[in-house]
Amino acid sequence: MKIEILKENLKNGLNILERIVGKNLSLPILNNVYINAEDNFLSMSSTDLETAIKLWILTKVIKKGKAVSPIKFLSSFVSLLPNEKIVIEEKNQILEVECKNFKTKIQGQNPEDFPLIPEFSNLEFLEINNKKLCQGLSQVVEVVSISQSRPEISGIYFSFSKNILKIVATDSFRLAEKTITLETAIKKDISFIIPQKPAKEIINILNEKEGNVKAFISPSQIMFEFPMKDLPHPQFQIISRLIEGEYPNYQAIIPSKFKTHIILKRDEFLNQIKAASLFSGKISEVKIIVGKDKNEVEIFSKDPDIGENRSTISAKITGEDQEVSFNYKFLIDGLNNIKSSEVVFELSEKEGPCVLKPVGDLSYLYVVMPIKST
Amino acid sequence: MKIEILKENLKNGLNILERIVGKNLSLPILNNVYINAEDNFLSMSSTDLETAIKLWILTKVIKKGKAVSPIKFLSSFVSLLPNEKIVIEEKNQILEVECKNFKTKIQGQNPEDFPLIPEFSNLEFLEINNKKLCQGLSQVVEVVSISQSRPEISGIYFSFSKNILKIVATDSFRLAEKTITLETAIKKDISFIIPQKPAKEIINILNEKEGNVKAFISPSQIMFEFPMKDLPHPQFQIISRLIEGEYPNYQAIIPSKFKTHIILKRDEFLNQIKAASLFSGKISEVKIIVGKDKNEVEIFSKDPDIGENRSTISAKITGEDQEVSFNYKFLIDGLNNIKSSEVVFELSEKEGPCVLKPVGDLSYLYVVMPIKST
Repeated sequence: MKIEILKENLKNGLNILERIVGKNLSLPILNNVYINAEDNFLSMSSTDLETAIKLWILTKVIKKGKAVSPIKFLSSFVSLLPNEKIVIEEKNQILEVECKNFKTKIQGQNPEDFPLIPEFSNLEFLEINNKKLCQGLSQVVEVVSISQSRPEISGIYFSFSKNILKIVATDSFRLAEKTITLETAIKKDISFIIPQKPAKEIINILNEKEGNVKAFISPSQIMFEFPMKDLPHPQFQIISRLIEGEYPNYQAIIPSKFKTHIILKRDEFLNQIKAASLFSGKISEVKIIVGKDKNEVEIFSKDPDIGENRSTISAKITGEDQEVSFNYKFLIDGLNNIKSSEVVFELSEKEGPCVLKPVGDLSYLYVVMPIKST
Repeated sequence: MKIEILKENLKNGLNILERIVGKNLSLPILNNVYINAEDNFLSMSSTDLETAIKLWILTKVIKKGKAVSPIKFLSSFVSLLPNEKIVIEEKNQILEVECKNFKTKIQGQNPEDFPLIPEFSNLEFLEINNKKLCQGLSQVVEVVSISQSRPEISGIYFSFSKNILKIVATDSFRLAEKTITLETAIKKDISFIIPQKPAKEIINILNEKEGNVKAFISPSQIMFEFPMKDLPHPQFQIISRLIEGEYPNYQAIIPSKFKTHIILKRDEFLNQIKAASLFSGKISEVKIIVGKDKNEVEIFSKDPDIGENRSTISAKITGEDQEVSFNYKFLIDGLNNIKSSEVVFELSEKEGPCVLKPVGDLSYLYVVMPIKST
């Protein structure tokens, strides 16, 4: 294998691929990048066996071939090279790198030992607008359950029905749902659960890209593919296993009736919850006290060792006065997922699920369970 | 105690003071800030018993008095308050804080329990230009010995003689010396050693300030004081214990003769050392090979498990060809302390001390010992 590539192109590619590589001691080949020089293209892949990323770079290929090289090492090294053309040649599993003033040899491994990255090319696919997908995913991706005792809620649920995609995550204390309208309706409804890690990679890799991403779905895996315009290879593929199991019937817990409906300034509310959190004690409790007469919401928290905090925020209130307590972390997460300047906060019967959502945007809602007030 | 203060002023003061506060379990009073409301001024102090910082803020004092409050907690809380006037009142060791929409109580402690911050007001002092002091300190402060087996080289040596101040640090593998010319000669030569932590605080607190700082020296302590123009109190005081013991006769190890004299581009040299460091193995060895004929310096490193790296940098060379090996960390530290675009690198006899210094600036030098080449 021998190629000529610009430093920046190689560096950018390695930076994307190295993110999913940890320090795998039981299978050290996974700490490497798999490099394949084909006709005019260099493809590079990395995998942790659950998620794989593959990308293509238009490159001058002097001699086709494959190589495997330690990815974090190669990435650190390449980032220190001058911004020039790099010539890379593989000889007996050693990568010889030449770049203005530098002559370097990096010990690699046998490309045959690298796990196969699955291919999906003949499957049917769905198309989703990139920015909508990434924005929606980023509003739900942190809400999944950390515990692996119920694996199905450790991932993000995608549910396609006609021209509607719903992206959902929950950890049983709160739930986030994003609704995306597709440009074209799909033929057959489909749903699946993808793990959190590849979902985060989709956001990181595709967030700033214009255009559509294609999703190819097999019974146990999914591939998100982002095309390279007018060229035979895609720019990126993100491949993930799917999580087995049935996603809970989450729609049953989204309340349809509320006792109190509040509209608040989002930034001020978030800041007051943060201040209250400092006084919230071991159970992280902050109390929301709605007083309709005064057109304001009071936020109260108290820790006998530290002190107490009381703040007020003006609000548009309809419905009944009441006091409800929450774990402040769940309120902060919900407010962080909402970017509008005002939020709707709907409170149910005491200890029933409540809802946060952006004002003027029906596509997102965040359900949060109160805690029993002390 | 009752005062009225702007949020920003209080926040900035706390941010400076909290830096030296850790999490002291044996003497928890040290995790607090000492607050004293005097005529028109609020003074606040923190200490770790080795270093103390005290600062004054012009403030509306409604009622004089003292208070002690948990500093990191107070700082986190204040940073979340709106940018408005804050009214703070002390009642029975509780700080009552009121700021637009907020009413808060923070449990404090007895001001009597807070350690006394020493006073220096009647001593003679030296005056040093702030920027020169901070710039010089930052060029030597990281070179001190981490080990406490020789406490005298764990600190920074200040030596005043007539109108010359030399600031020195060494860990016995390398040494940095900065020479500062004072505006007025001092009457009596004096030298002392201050610990690294207060030296870093001087840089952090005074770095961006115009003007002179005063140094008051007692036999066991030093105070750096930065004035507040036309006002009866200073802005800041940084007080530190001095390190006992005699500083080594460091000037004996600064070589006066060299075998090889090299001028190199600083950024390129630094980058090539960093790249070489990746291949430098367990003993961190990079080899510098000087070839006068080619007007270039070669940098070589090799690790049998990883690979090898060879790079070249064009240089102006006088004197003899030679190969010298260094711990790459010491070269990187030295180059990081030099900001000029070109550096002088002077090599002695093999395994003798070498010197890095900025081109066109005689005020700084960095002596580094080679390692025995493998």
